[in-house]
Amino acid sequence: MRIAVLGGDGFVGWPTVLHLSAQGHEVHIIDNLSRRWIDTELGVQSLTPMDSIQERCRIWKEVSGQVLNFHLLNLATEYERLRVWLAEYRPDAIIHFAEQRAAPYSMKTDRHKVYTVNNNINATHNLLAALVETGIDAHLVHLGTMGVYGYSTVGAAIPEGYLDVKIDTPTGERGLEILYPTRPGSVYHMTKSLDQILFQFYAQNDGLRITDLHQGIVWGTHTDQTRRHVQLINRFDYDGDYGTVLNRFLIQAAIDYPLTVHGTGGQTRAFIHIQDSVRCIELALADAPKRGDRVKIFNQMTETHRVRDLAQLVAGLTGARVAYLPNPRKEADENELVVKNDQFLGLGLQPITLAEGLLSEVVDVARKYAHRIDRSRVPAVSAWTKDIANRVVHDPEGKKLRSVS
Amino acid sequence: MRIAVLGGDGFVGWPTVLHLSAQGHEVHIIDNLSRRWIDTELGVQSLTPMDSIQERCRIWKEVSGQVLNFHLLNLATEYERLRVWLAEYRPDAIIHFAEQRAAPYSMKTDRHKVYTVNNNINATHNLLAALVETGIDAHLVHLGTMGVYGYSTVGAAIPEGYLDVKIDTPTGERGLEILYPTRPGSVYHMTKSLDQILFQFYAQNDGLRITDLHQGIVWGTHTDQTRRHVQLINRFDYDGDYGTVLNRFLIQAAIDYPLTVHGTGGQTRAFIHIQDSVRCIELALADAPKRGDRVKIFNQMTETHRVRDLAQLVAGLTGARVAYLPNPRKEADENELVVKNDQFLGLGLQPITLAEGLLSEVVDVARKYAHRIDRSRVPAVSAWTKDIANRVVHDPEGKKLRSVS
Repeated sequence: MRIAVLGGDGFVGWPTVLHLSAQGHEVHIIDNLSRRWIDTELGVQSLTPMDSIQERCRIWKEVSGQVLNFHLLNLATEYERLRVWLAEYRPDAIIHFAEQRAAPYSMKTDRHKVYTVNNNINATHNLLAALVETGIDAHLVHLGTMGVYGYSTVGAAIPEGYLDVKIDTPTGERGLEILYPTRPGSVYHMTKSLDQILFQFYAQNDGLRITDLHQGIVWGTHTDQTRRHVQLINRFDYDGDYGTVLNRFLIQAAIDYPLTVHGTGGQTRAFIHIQDSVRCIELALADAPKRGDRVKIFNQMTETHRVRDLAQLVAGLTGARVAYLPNPRKEADENELVVKNDQFLGLGLQPITLAEGLLSEVVDVARKYAHRIDRSRVPAVSAWTKDIANRVVHDPEGKKLRSVS
Repeated sequence: MRIAVLGGDGFVGWPTVLHLSAQGHEVHIIDNLSRRWIDTELGVQSLTPMDSIQERCRIWKEVSGQVLNFHLLNLATEYERLRVWLAEYRPDAIIHFAEQRAAPYSMKTDRHKVYTVNNNINATHNLLAALVETGIDAHLVHLGTMGVYGYSTVGAAIPEGYLDVKIDTPTGERGLEILYPTRPGSVYHMTKSLDQILFQFYAQNDGLRITDLHQGIVWGTHTDQTRRHVQLINRFDYDGDYGTVLNRFLIQAAIDYPLTVHGTGGQTRAFIHIQDSVRCIELALADAPKRGDRVKIFNQMTETHRVRDLAQLVAGLTGARVAYLPNPRKEADENELVVKNDQFLGLGLQPITLAEGLLSEVVDVARKYAHRIDRSRVPAVSAWTKDIANRVVHDPEGKKLRSVS
């Protein structure tokens, strides 16, 4: 197949590109390299040394013999170029990662909120409008998030996208299947909720074939392909904005910094290993909806953990201590999370568990590159509201985390 | 109160400005005049001769002694100027009309789809982000649409924004109140569905006080204030994109053109007179939610009618004949529509009915200005899908409506 990977230079995008290329597909990376620009803006860098996308593509050709095609294109601002590109290349499938993907970054300032909504919604909607305009019947696979469900669960396992409800009508009770009522907890998560409505409309009005993957927090660094050459290594974010909770713990352990748990650590989250993530995308690609079908939604996660339990797990492996900090997010202190992922298990996914994969991350990645860590960038500083931003908070080493207005 | 009316130069915006000014409020109009630019783009004009916004403000001062303040500002593209304006003027309330509001225009071409999403979502989100950033606790009243509910009703009267449902959980059945599951039928309607999620998030995360008015199709031209001077007259759109169904029928009758019903005319729609619309906004303003409340949602409509019944009503008043054309929209041929509007009735709204107000529209507006009508702009030509666009359709006078690709 000819596959376009939008955002193919990113954390999950890049290993997906390699995975699909290794399977013999003709892969086109479309990316505006915004994630690299954000590294520059924040003054942070991937823990793992990361080459330019052009260099990575060259190395992959050397290693595998397969060509990767890179196209520099901004989906959100260059609608005409996108449409022309699609009309020329006519991909069979499109994997869409090209959205700003960090909740803390999306809550940093008003400018970051405005950027995230503008970028994510226009990127996704431009793509949908261009597909209709060019008449290309590509299968669109979009990376969503478990976060659209919100974390105030309704007391039942979270189904895969659609919820069965009953309503009272004048002629008696009636069953109805609806999109799970969304309750996003950040501007970033909100954009993925908006995406759902865009997808619903374009599937219904124009028959676009769309799969939306509600992904958990991705952990791990290596896939079978990134291991093939040191310069193919994936990015590993550990800073307070882009570093997700597990990566932060691993890094903190590697540099002898306390594992920082926000609030009580009672937040329960869903996780998936990067190797499983690229495998799920392969499975979703092969299970495309038909024209006229509703949007197909998968929960792309393999296990759930409470944050404080994760901290204990990493502490047990490494001897690190755990520190509790005030939560910069506005969210429930404690939540339950039970998630259905029957569809991917049914398609043959065999999950890599945290229990088996975590130690190699500690040794092969976190300790190996620990000399590249900037300790000052580890704490999460983006606050969800003005009130939270105005509270004085110190990091475990006693430094003030935010300048108080 | 100091009130900002965003989109205060538009069809409902302008009479709202006058209504609130007449009550003694300090009114600021913020508008980028995009609606006038779209007139230019489409080569159409309001049936009623419409002066510049500056001239209208001058006349209102002469007539009423009240000052109106006009600020030229693009909410969607000038975030910084919006924030600075809010910080300087600190309004007590904000009425937000500033979105592209015609479904056919939003479906015209890919460029119009892209414009509508970009403009509407960024305008609304910029406003929300700027309110949080400036810390202004203004009551935000937004004009939404009945169309977010979609027209495939669930078999019960449409409640005001929130739906009671029951779900099965491992511990038994549980009740839940959710945002009515949205099912928009055009890109325009879709943007109003997205707005709902934006409002839900900002009310929950930042305590913004928001009222969302799900409005029906507005008909009528005059309010008590627009009648006070010929140059204060409201705009009246009759073209195939911006002219809503009832206005189109009135104009068709006035120029002896058949009343064009799309499909079977079995579509049922909700309506409200422009005078009731401005009165509802006044009532909603006075009934503000408290900080921390969820978004308050009203159904802003007073009666429902089937399109073919409306055509018969106008035909009976005027002697016009009715012509059935293929439907350019993708929608159900026939739908029921029962809507609750208990909240506005409870606050004292006394609806003007079609039966009592329609004749004066025919005589005072449609016939009076019939000499300004361009017959060629009356048919609706925007098609909802490529398939519909490719069908050959003739207007009742035998002209081809669309050029076939």
